[in-house]
This record gives sequence, C-alpha cells and structure tokens, in this order.
Amino acid sequence: MNGPRSATPLRIAITTGEPAGVGPELTAQALAQALSMHADAPSTQAGEAGASRWPGVQIVVIGDADLLAQRAARVGIDWRAIVARDDVSVEHRALAAPSVAGRLDAANGRYVLGLLDAAIDGALEGRYAALVTAPLQKSTINDAGVPFTGHTEYLAERTRTPRVVMMLAGTGERPLRVALATTHLPLRDVSAALTIESLVETLRIIDHDLRSAFGLASPRILVTGLNPHAGENGYLGREEIDVISPALDRARAAGIDARGPYPADTLFQPRYLRDADCVLAMFHDQGLPVLKYATFGEGINVTLGLPIVRTSVDHGTALDLAGTGRADAGSLLAAIDTAVTMARHRAQADAGHPAIPQPPLST
Amino acid sequence: MNGPRSATPLRIAITTGEPAGVGPELTAQALAQALSMHADAPSTQAGEAGASRWPGVQIVVIGDADLLAQRAARVGIDWRAIVARDDVSVEHRALAAPSVAGRLDAANGRYVLGLLDAAIDGALEGRYAALVTAPLQKSTINDAGVPFTGHTEYLAERTRTPRVVMMLAGTGERPLRVALATTHLPLRDVSAALTIESLVETLRIIDHDLRSAFGLASPRILVTGLNPHAGENGYLGREEIDVISPALDRARAAGIDARGPYPADTLFQPRYLRDADCVLAMFHDQGLPVLKYATFGEGINVTLGLPIVRTSVDHGTALDLAGTGRADAGSLLAAIDTAVTMARHRAQADAGHPAIPQPPLST
Ligand SMILES: [Zn+2]
Ligand SMILES: [Zn+2]
Repeated sequence: MNGPRSATPLRIAITTGEPAGVGPELTAQALAQALSMHADAPSTQAGEAGASRWPGVQIVVIGDADLLAQRAARVGIDWRAIVARDDVSVEHRALAAPSVAGRLDAANGRYVLGLLDAAIDGALEGRYAALVTAPLQKSTINDAGVPFTGHTEYLAERTRTPRVVMMLAGTGERPLRVALATTHLPLRDVSAALTIESLVETLRIIDHDLRSAFGLASPRILVTGLNPHAGENGYLGREEIDVISPALDRARAAGIDARGPYPADTLFQPRYLRDADCVLAMFHDQGLPVLKYATFGEGINVTLGLPIVRTSVDHGTALDLAGTGRADAGSLLAAIDTAVTMARHRAQADAGHPAIPQPPLST
Repeated sequence: MNGPRSATPLRIAITTGEPAGVGPELTAQALAQALSMHADAPSTQAGEAGASRWPGVQIVVIGDADLLAQRAARVGIDWRAIVARDDVSVEHRALAAPSVAGRLDAANGRYVLGLLDAAIDGALEGRYAALVTAPLQKSTINDAGVPFTGHTEYLAERTRTPRVVMMLAGTGERPLRVALATTHLPLRDVSAALTIESLVETLRIIDHDLRSAFGLASPRILVTGLNPHAGENGYLGREEIDVISPALDRARAAGIDARGPYPADTLFQPRYLRDADCVLAMFHDQGLPVLKYATFGEGINVTLGLPIVRTSVDHGTALDLAGTGRADAGSLLAAIDTAVTMARHRAQADAGHPAIPQPPLST
C-alpha cells in the first residue's frame, strides 16, 4: 500500500454473488466495519462519514440495490448511511425474481452472471482497478442453462487468458501463500496434467504477479514434490525427476527463484516458510488443508495471471447462515485489503501501459 | 494414564536407531528432561534420583552403551547418573564399527536392525509393554544388504500383522490425530489402492485401537474424500461414490462412528475437529502437511493394528544436527508419553489376555 496514489480514486468493484447466500450481507458487514467502525476512524457525529480502512479508494458494490438494503437491515446495518458516503456507490442490477435467504432459485442464475460480467467489463475498460468476488453457487447458473465451472475459469475465458494460477493466502505482514499447479481435477488425473511447460508457465506467472502486484522485489517460491517425500529419489514416483526438477531448472535459468521439489509434509514449517514468499503445491488437497488451517477462515483467493486484479473470499455461499448475520466478514475484508494492495502495486508497475497478458517464456 | 498400575513396573523399550543420527543424543536429552529436570521433580541432592515424568515406568534403552555415554557427554548430559537410576536400564548391543555423528556407515546396518529385533522380541515375549523407536536411516540397512522399507512395514512383517495403520498425532488434552488410508505410494497409484475392503479394515483398526489403547469409549472418525471437494457429487472423481461412501456405510453398520467423506481442504477447522477423535485421510500428503503444521514438530507416529504398542518420533535422523545437541527432544518425549498411555490402556483392556491381532470384520 505504499505506491503513489493517483489523483482519481482507485475504484474497487465488489460482486455480491449468489443472492440467496451470505454475499450481500457480508458486503454490508465488511463495509460497515471498514468505513465507520474502523479502529483508526476518528469519532464522528451522526451523519458524518467516518474514516475509511482504504483511504483514496472508491468501493462500487454490484448487485440489486433493494436486496442489499434488505439484507443489511436484517443483520442490523444502516445501509443508507453506507451508500450515502462519497466513497461508496452501488451499481444496481435488478434481480430476476425476489430472493429468499438460503433458498436457491435458478431464475436468478443470469443475474449472478450479470454481476460478474459488469465487473469484468468495467475492469477491462479501466473503470475498476480490481474486482472482489463474493461467493456464488455454480448450480444456480448451471440450472439457468448456462455452462459455468467457476469464477476462475470464467474470468480466464472472458479475458482470453490462456493460463491462470489459483493462489490462496493469509493476511498480515508475512502471510502464508499457497499457489496450485493443478486445481479442480480428479486426483487420478493430476500426474498426467503436470508437464514441464505447464509448471514453468505457472512459476512465471507467480513470479511476475508477486513482483508487479505484491511489490516483492525478488520473490522466492518453494515447490513441493508430487509424491510422498518428494518421491524419495524415484522410489516413490518419478514425476519429481522427470517433470518437476527439469521445470525448476528451466525457471531458474529464466531468473525465477524457485526451489524444490520438497516433501510437502515437512515443508510447511516455520524454518522453511520464513524465507518463502509463496509455496507452489502440485494439487488442491496437498496445499489447501494446511493453508486453510493456518488462516482460520480468514484466507483469501487470488487469481494470478489475469490482465485484471481479482481477489475473492475462500469460502462458499454458506446458505445455512444467510440472513443470520453469523457469517464472518473477515475473509471478505481481507480480500478487499489485498485487492487494494494489488491494484496500487499494479498501477505503479504498469506505469501507464495497458495491462495485457504476458507472452510465454521462450522454452 | 488413569488405568490401574500393575505391581511390576511397566517396561518401555526405546530403540536408539541410526548411530550416526540424533537418536542416541535425543534419548539422553529426553531422559534427562523427563527424569531429573521434570517440573514436578522435587529438588534433589547430588546423586539422588529425581521424580520421573512417568511414575511406575521402567525405561529400557536399547543400543551400544559406550555410544550412548559418548553422545550424552557431547551434549552435556551426565549419562552415568541417568543409568544409575532404578527406573532406567540399558540393553547393550555392540556397534559393529565405531560411529561418527553425521556419517552413515553400512557396517552398522545390522546393528540398527538388531536393536529393533531385540525390542520386538521383548515385546512379543511380554517383557516390554511398548516400544518407542528413534529414527533410523533406511539406506544404512539397505546398504548392508538387507531389504528394508521402513519401521512400520518391518513391524507388521515381524508380528505377522496383515494390515497396520499409520497415525500421526499431536499432544495435549484433545490432540489432532490423522490416520492414513494409504502411506508410501506414488500419488498416481493411490486411487487403485483404495478398496471398500481396505477402508473398512482400516476403520476397524482405528476404532479398535482408539478404544483399547487410547481409552476412548466411542471414538468418532472423520473421513476425507479422495478428490478435491470430496469429488463434488461425482464431477471431480467417482471414488467417493464408488468406494468411500460404501465403506463408510459398512463400517457404520459394524458400529463404528465414521463420518464423511468430507472435503479435505475445509475439514481441518476447529468447528469440525472439536467433535472428532481422528481424521482418516486418504493419502500421505493430504493429511500430513496440516498435521505437522499443527503439531510444530512435536508430533508423534503411532502404528495401529499391531499386537504390540509402538510409537515413534515423526522426524528423521537429522544427520546435520547429530552431535550438536540442537535437535529437539520434544517429539521423542511425546512418543514416550503416548506409549505409556497406550500401554496402560491396553493392559487394562486386555485384562490378562495375550494381545493378538483381531479377526477381520465379516464383510
Ligand atoms: Zn512419510
Ligand atoms: Zn477448491
């Protein structure tokens, strides 16, 4: 957050996601906490806006304005006071059908997708410096007759990005960050999905985005093996020898500080992590259980490799909690924090150039 | 530790493992901490034995007596004072060749195996109530011309146990425990290794041993899926539907409180773990990174399903630390604690019957 600020405020879009889920109320809770109840806020008189957790940032909430007001009221938040602020606005998109908290309705499938489209279009046109996505329910969109496999895949397709990298992270000074070489694949297909080329490209994206969007001058990436004990010199599998090590050699030759492959079971220890900016795990359940354990549900999800900044909560729609106010806005606040940080660093790194996908390494 | 104590002390054997590694000095450090420097120990005069961390327990250290004295001296421990105690003895086995800390020597391969054999024989004959193993180096034994794949496999073979289960655990009141459905297999072979029969048998062993050796009246076992998000209803793999769920049904029909399959990335959260006695993970790198993160290197390894009690440290020989005294004896102390607890519960549960492997469930 130490980049120069442009004269115009940095605009961050929040898509409020599945209307039957916790997205709308979490957005209200996060903004209530961040804008008027922030610890740094000076005491304010009634009607006067408090300080923001994100000075110089304009928050644009994308969703149905009435739905937002209703869900905010239900959890005891004065939504009118929030949207009356100069640094908050709502981009209204009308629900197709009234939404009941906790009850999915395919009639609103295209509404949910429309929120995302509005945010992506705005980001591609330069109106939004970042987008933060509240959770959606895939089945609502699928049941509306639209094929949809997930936020990340949709963002890649809409921005014509051939490869993106999913990274989950904690918060704080030196957060744990875990990126994945493969994501939502059956476990038996993981080995075949790992190639030297795909790993080199994944490392290139991580290295690039940690520099440009996180402001790290020389990011260090620790890479796990695929097999137990990183294959134990080939006794427990050959992917480390045939694929991962050659990819690391090639990445290092391209100036990337990537090390490994290390046994995943012993890598997540303070003595290794304290020198690392990111761990690249080979697959979903190798990296995410420990990341989510370590971040206590305050983790965030970042899509690396996109021409736009996108962060997300790391939890789902929590239908059973919708309307109760008992869901925790911590992950959404952290996702906005990270989006702001990334957008500021990118604005600096891009230095006026349009954000475009990087050409692949010549390999 | 609340079982009745037999009149004769409970004898616990410690195999000191690879002589070039940290095993000998960790044994000395653990005993020094546990016997005379324990917080509960009354202040003692020189030459007088302090209280033990394990009252009523006799520790038998199996290894070369000179090596133990030398390594203890090197890390500043008065080994003579320890072995002069009534509740400690050394079962001397001579090294084949002098051992240098940090330097492996295949000449001592059969020595290392001999320590293990002595402990197993003693346990099978009823002289030892439990055995605690310090780390060994497989290559030392292999290079001596003996095929050897690991402690656990060797123990299973020597005790003619058809199936054992590896479980790692933390310490404390309600420790995290993670058992594995498969262990040291290449990742690409994991799916084929999971069968309904193998999972039912694994659950039966966990349930049995948590009752008989941990004193849990109705152990609850939470079971992960194999695929990301536990397969997402078959979209990300079918093993949950075809194998894991049927195995859980069968285990529950046999009176085992086994639940799942749950997505591994979200299962390791306090709100789920607080009601669980054990998590059964499908493979090594799904369960162990989070276990080892959570236990900060104080985790222990327990082999379930054996006719004898066996616990172990969860780390390796740490050759680079051997002789320095900088390795942490916490895991070895915890392994002895757990061995004592398990041996006491077993003595109670067995109520005079010889410990034998249980017949398989009729399935
Ligand atoms: Zn292992
Ligand atoms: Zn996922």
